[in-house]
Amino acid sequence: MDYASGENELKNWIIAETGFNPDYLGKCEAMMALGNGYLGLRSATEESYVGEVRNLFVAGTFNRFDEYEVTELPNGADITRMDIRINGKRFSLENGKIRKYKRMLNLKTGELTRHIRWVSPRGEELEFVFRRFVSLNNLHCIGMRAEITAMNQDMEVSIESGINGQLTNTGVQHFHEGEKRIFEKKYLQLIQTTTQSKIDFVVNTVHQYRVDGKEVDGEPKMVIDRRKVVLIQDIKLNRGQKLVVEKISNVYTSRDKEYDHGDYSLEVLRKDALFNLKSECKKGYEGLLQESIKKWEEVWEKYSICIDSLQDFDQLAIRFAHYHLVIMTPAHDHRMGIGAKGLSGEGYKGHSFWDTEIYILPFFTYTDPQIARKLLEYRYHTIDGARKKAKENGYEGAMYPWESAWKDDGEVTPVWGAVDIVTGKATKIWSGFIEKHISSDIAFALWQYYMITGDEDFMEKYGYEMLFEIAKFWASCLEWSEEKKEYHINDVIGPDEYKEHVNNNAFTNYMAHWTISKAIDYYHVVKEKKPEVYGRLNVLLGLDEAYRHWISKVDKIYLPQPRQEDLVIPQDDTYLQKEIIDLTEYKNQKHVGSIFRDYNLEQVNNIQVSKQADTLILFYLLENLFTKDIKRANWNYYEPKTLHDSSLSLSIHSILACDLDDLELAYSLFERAARIDLGPNMKSSDHGIHAAALGGIWQGVVCGFGGVRMLNGELRIDPKLPKEWSRLEFPIEWRGNRLHIVVTKDKEKQRLYITRMSNHDNAQAITLEVRGRKYTFKERLMVNL
Amino acid sequence: MDYASGENELKNWIIAETGFNPDYLGKCEAMMALGNGYLGLRSATEESYVGEVRNLFVAGTFNRFDEYEVTELPNGADITRMDIRINGKRFSLENGKIRKYKRMLNLKTGELTRHIRWVSPRGEELEFVFRRFVSLNNLHCIGMRAEITAMNQDMEVSIESGINGQLTNTGVQHFHEGEKRIFEKKYLQLIQTTTQSKIDFVVNTVHQYRVDGKEVDGEPKMVIDRRKVVLIQDIKLNRGQKLVVEKISNVYTSRDKEYDHGDYSLEVLRKDALFNLKSECKKGYEGLLQESIKKWEEVWEKYSICIDSLQDFDQLAIRFAHYHLVIMTPAHDHRMGIGAKGLSGEGYKGHSFWDTEIYILPFFTYTDPQIARKLLEYRYHTIDGARKKAKENGYEGAMYPWESAWKDDGEVTPVWGAVDIVTGKATKIWSGFIEKHISSDIAFALWQYYMITGDEDFMEKYGYEMLFEIAKFWASCLEWSEEKKEYHINDVIGPDEYKEHVNNNAFTNYMAHWTISKAIDYYHVVKEKKPEVYGRLNVLLGLDEAYRHWISKVDKIYLPQPRQEDLVIPQDDTYLQKEIIDLTEYKNQKHVGSIFRDYNLEQVNNIQVSKQADTLILFYLLENLFTKDIKRANWNYYEPKTLHDSSLSLSIHSILACDLDDLELAYSLFERAARIDLGPNMKSSDHGIHAAALGGIWQGVVCGFGGVRMLNGELRIDPKLPKEWSRLEFPIEWRGNRLHIVVTKDKEKQRLYITRMSNHDNAQAITLEVRGRKYTFKERLMVNL
Repeated sequence: MDYASGENELKNWIIAETGFNPDYLGKCEAMMALGNGYLGLRSATEESYVGEVRNLFVAGTFNRFDEYEVTELPNGADITRMDIRINGKRFSLENGKIRKYKRMLNLKTGELTRHIRWVSPRGEELEFVFRRFVSLNNLHCIGMRAEITAMNQDMEVSIESGINGQLTNTGVQHFHEGEKRIFEKKYLQLIQTTTQSKIDFVVNTVHQYRVDGKEVDGEPKMVIDRRKVVLIQDIKLNRGQKLVVEKISNVYTSRDKEYDHGDYSLEVLRKDALFNLKSECKKGYEGLLQESIKKWEEVWEKYSICIDSLQDFDQLAIRFAHYHLVIMTPAHDHRMGIGAKGLSGEGYKGHSFWDTEIYILPFFTYTDPQIARKLLEYRYHTIDGARKKAKENGYEGAMYPWESAWKDDGEVTPVWGAVDIVTGKATKIWSGFIEKHISSDIAFALWQYYMITGDEDFMEKYGYEMLFEIAKFWASCLEWSEEKKEYHINDVIGPDEYKEHVNNNAFTNYMAHWTISKAIDYYHVVKEKKPEVYGRLNVLLGLDEAYRHWISKVDKIYLPQPRQEDLVIPQDDTYLQKEIIDLTEYKNQKHVGSIFRDYNLEQVNNIQVSKQADTLILFYLLENLFTKDIKRANWNYYEPKTLHDSSLSLSIHSILACDLDDLELAYSLFERAARIDLGPNMKSSDHGIHAAALGGIWQGVVCGFGGVRMLNGELRIDPKLPKEWSRLEFPIEWRGNRLHIVVTKDKEKQRLYITRMSNHDNAQAITLEVRGRKYTFKERLMVNL
Repeated sequence: MDYASGENELKNWIIAETGFNPDYLGKCEAMMALGNGYLGLRSATEESYVGEVRNLFVAGTFNRFDEYEVTELPNGADITRMDIRINGKRFSLENGKIRKYKRMLNLKTGELTRHIRWVSPRGEELEFVFRRFVSLNNLHCIGMRAEITAMNQDMEVSIESGINGQLTNTGVQHFHEGEKRIFEKKYLQLIQTTTQSKIDFVVNTVHQYRVDGKEVDGEPKMVIDRRKVVLIQDIKLNRGQKLVVEKISNVYTSRDKEYDHGDYSLEVLRKDALFNLKSECKKGYEGLLQESIKKWEEVWEKYSICIDSLQDFDQLAIRFAHYHLVIMTPAHDHRMGIGAKGLSGEGYKGHSFWDTEIYILPFFTYTDPQIARKLLEYRYHTIDGARKKAKENGYEGAMYPWESAWKDDGEVTPVWGAVDIVTGKATKIWSGFIEKHISSDIAFALWQYYMITGDEDFMEKYGYEMLFEIAKFWASCLEWSEEKKEYHINDVIGPDEYKEHVNNNAFTNYMAHWTISKAIDYYHVVKEKKPEVYGRLNVLLGLDEAYRHWISKVDKIYLPQPRQEDLVIPQDDTYLQKEIIDLTEYKNQKHVGSIFRDYNLEQVNNIQVSKQADTLILFYLLENLFTKDIKRANWNYYEPKTLHDSSLSLSIHSILACDLDDLELAYSLFERAARIDLGPNMKSSDHGIHAAALGGIWQGVVCGFGGVRMLNGELRIDPKLPKEWSRLEFPIEWRGNRLHIVVTKDKEKQRLYITRMSNHDNAQAITLEVRGRKYTFKERLMVNL
């Protein structure tokens, strides 16, 4: 991979692949994925290779193959494959000679290009320029363009291209065969319906073939096959001539907000979709691309972060994170969540985890709170599933699913995972049953959103109800210990998934306690100040009774305390008694999960080893509860035992290292966090990019080095630039105000500049804390750090 | 393709591919398919290529994906793929340099081998010998063996191999995910159940890795993935060392006769299957292969045909036909039919057509009548489906499905086919509704079987019932024409599928008339001689009443007569009035169906053009009904209008040319018929071999040039060798006697020798007709022709 391809105004905007390697197709397919939050298009190449994964996902279109598997985002029909034949032989970079090769994703424009000069084994030399984008303007639209130039001789070129619904999700077919049509000998249409959720997909495509600007004569051969409709166009190219193929496609589904209503008619949907294609394709590839680029310009205007670093890569990494955060997020529809792999791969089946609330949401909350609100509304949308899950597990309130899909689906975590090397059976996945902390993660995120935005409307409509229901859930989870005279939370998995069935996981207990405490606080608020909300929720949730429970229990919840001898907070009741082994072999490995080559999960359960940040996350989320000494002691204890086998780990550790003033370590952890997808491991992104890790990059910059934190409802900005950085510039939104933050460093002298970008006439002053001191300003603030 | 690879005792036994061409993978995958009638294994290569089709079919295990598609033979989990990495790079013949390449199917032993010498793009040079067979001895067992020799340097070799259930039928997944297990770190097991028919598949596999004869140290990496369980074994090969991987697999299903009963238990099935694998794998690849070869020796002993021809290919072609007829036929189980593509591809979904009765069955009836009986019992097995179809269509008796699968399935012809180039929609397939002649084809075949074998037991148990039910069906189809005062059969498709919705297709009417006539004859026989059968069937079928119908209608069925002016029998009521166009462009084309590039089916319907032999087949099946003059007149009329776009056409035309004494034409048609799969068209077998065409090769030899015919229950042998042949030797069975037939030719003087091979002490004399004269003999007969 090459990240230095961009020059001048494109510097640090270009992700490039400079050589073709058929062993590592997944890396660029995922890293260079295209999308717009409505749809995600994995960047498999036009020509086909063994090992490729072609994915077209439309957010929210979940389907369940059968009763033995969980629902997942189905892989829609492919429109990216083009079989190109030169004098009858299939073009493939696996044979012949590659004279030039460069594939580039332009993060600024969202356009993917490939430049290839290739000599076939028969000696035909050609130049190819492939271009492709998914429109940020028309969410349904996908543009493709191929330029093929005959360099050294006349040749017959044949292009087979269309719509192919023979694809699956790793073998699972989510669609009925459907209807295949060709209109006016050029508009191809495939209509397929998902097998269980009965969502209609309408995929249309149209081609234009030109040689040296002149439209090609001769009708293509039309082929309707099983789940497939394609055209085969034969073209004679003289030496030096250039063939340009433009392929404009679109995708609509009956889950689209505009169609998902009682009067839905497939006939209307397919007509609209075809009409849209017919009118869009008149603009041509270039016209459609320009419309999309305009939307990207608005994005960069709003999100842009500038880093002056000795390493250009840092600037590129934050742009990469922004790019993917945009294309993975269904900002258009509050009924949908973000998948753990975005829309870039089949990994985690399109399901949403706590990754959204703890790793990704802060970016939106601080930068584009309207989208953050939609993502939280998605959780409200699924609250009935959470209530159902609570009831099924013998609890009250809302027990949010560990993995979440469509609103009615409830818990969708698969039950069986990878091989157990000892028994030879698949390992049981317990997260869906006992990884309970996600409910407080959601409560925390909505409170964070509320504090940062001040969005009362959200709280009244959704937020309070969620908070109270989650508090009810936790209250019902508490188990009284007669011996200790306190409430325990038993049999859970904490963030560290290498410890299953533990009691009193510190993170879980603290967050449950926090949730109930906040519910108590807000019970008073609504009762006193929002009688309408109080009345409604009291009827719906039995608020008064719930409150009595909370009050009676909250102070008796066991919160694991630092040990006297070394200030270490036990991760759970038994962690500190487990065996300590030499972890050198497994820490900082190229491949995550390397410990499972030697131990099965049961054995790993009995070793003091953590998959990821667990107790330490408390110091980030509930920062004020712990002293620096406690933080440092626990850091020293847990960091060496943490394998970072989850992509949710390094960014948090980097931020905490900032908090602990170890900037060198913070930067080196940030470097690793920023390379979870971008780094040299060519297989790590095969199943899709790491959505949480990308949110983690943003948090590492803004909350780590930028020092931004919301603490008890107050803004704190405590920037600490690493030695590699001389300047950091980023925007945040605070209570409806857009702030432009600049941190500069000159010979270790750091300065913080804050400019309020929004200008209301009688805007209130903004108060914040910097380096332990409070500041208040109206328009501009400068602080010497 | 090279058919001259075999030398000495292997002469004309070897089908070879001498160069690797990734554009034509399907050709050898199908032509070199392995199998044993229980299972069929398409011969995709160990390493994977774009465009490959990996198929493992188990006969009779039909499953229906959803209500919109018809049932089909599901593609079972793959055990053939092996990903071989040399120093981390995947072995693929698409790159690097191929120094030597030969793939061979040995028809005599059923073993498939590939010898490759290859230099990787990095300069590593290796020799590969891949071998593979499907056991004819243990029907569940598949043996594979790979030899990999490091020729020029030390290298790391890694082998990823196991069981992969991610495959589909062109995108359709027929299995639930199922259970994946690894026993004793070496026996891999995948258990999957079909989604609708709920058939359990148990697939097991085990590997052995040896370097220079010594077992490899070091455990393989175990991987359990979605629908997949594989091992990855890393091996260090020093220069000159040879790695041998043996992979023994087996497949069992709950449809196996032994398990398909009320007490079925999956636990027993999986245990038996694993036990079988464990004990079989001890014999090693070589031991298992030898057991299979012994069974093949028995086959060749029984079926062998010798042709002394100027063209060696003729001998090879008949062996090729025999080989495939063996591996495609579920001789082990009377509940199953033969698929139109055997078990060698997804084409026609594993369904049985009239191909079986008219094209394939004669081979078994004359050569291995026990198998012929089983295939006819399959039709009896499906008679309830045929009754249901009759009822649904408003008829009586048994209306056999045009496409047939499992007994309960009834009609399984898909309703939609290829693109209509005019409307851009899929074309409706009418065969399942109105291609009625299959019912009389079945009646004819069972009568033929009865006449040739004299198997009274079959007739009493199954044959009469089928014959009477089919006759009832036809009687109920007859429509009275007031104008003509005769019975018509309207709105049918005859054998020529380019004419839909025609009235009084000659073939259909004659065969219906024949069926009812035969039913009348046998009504008298059973009534007089088989009171038990008569009694039972009279109750079951209302035989007496049916008989009254037959008698009242049979003589009034319209049988199209030769036109006075030219003796042409109208193919149907309107054929001769349709437009005549110049067909040169479409006849004898490399690609069948080329007429559809210019016309849609509706237009083709209005042209005097036939897809395949139609009226002319009557002259083969009901030979005695027509004079030679009529035959010749119709030949001259219809042959030029027949495109042979069906693989069911050329062999019949070749036989008729024999009958008309045009041996030159007969031989040239035979040559083409024998090349439907073996010929130079590299795409024609992509969806599987042409089962009917292979039966046609046998009939071309034995019934065409060999002149064998059963006429009115009498044996006739009228050999006519083409000028290229000097000797033809073949076996037939006649009424329980095995006859060895030799035809020799010396300077146009032909002789026929017949030897009775079976020797009962008081065997009856055999009577037959040769060149219009009757002969009777007990042990040997010689006739100068």
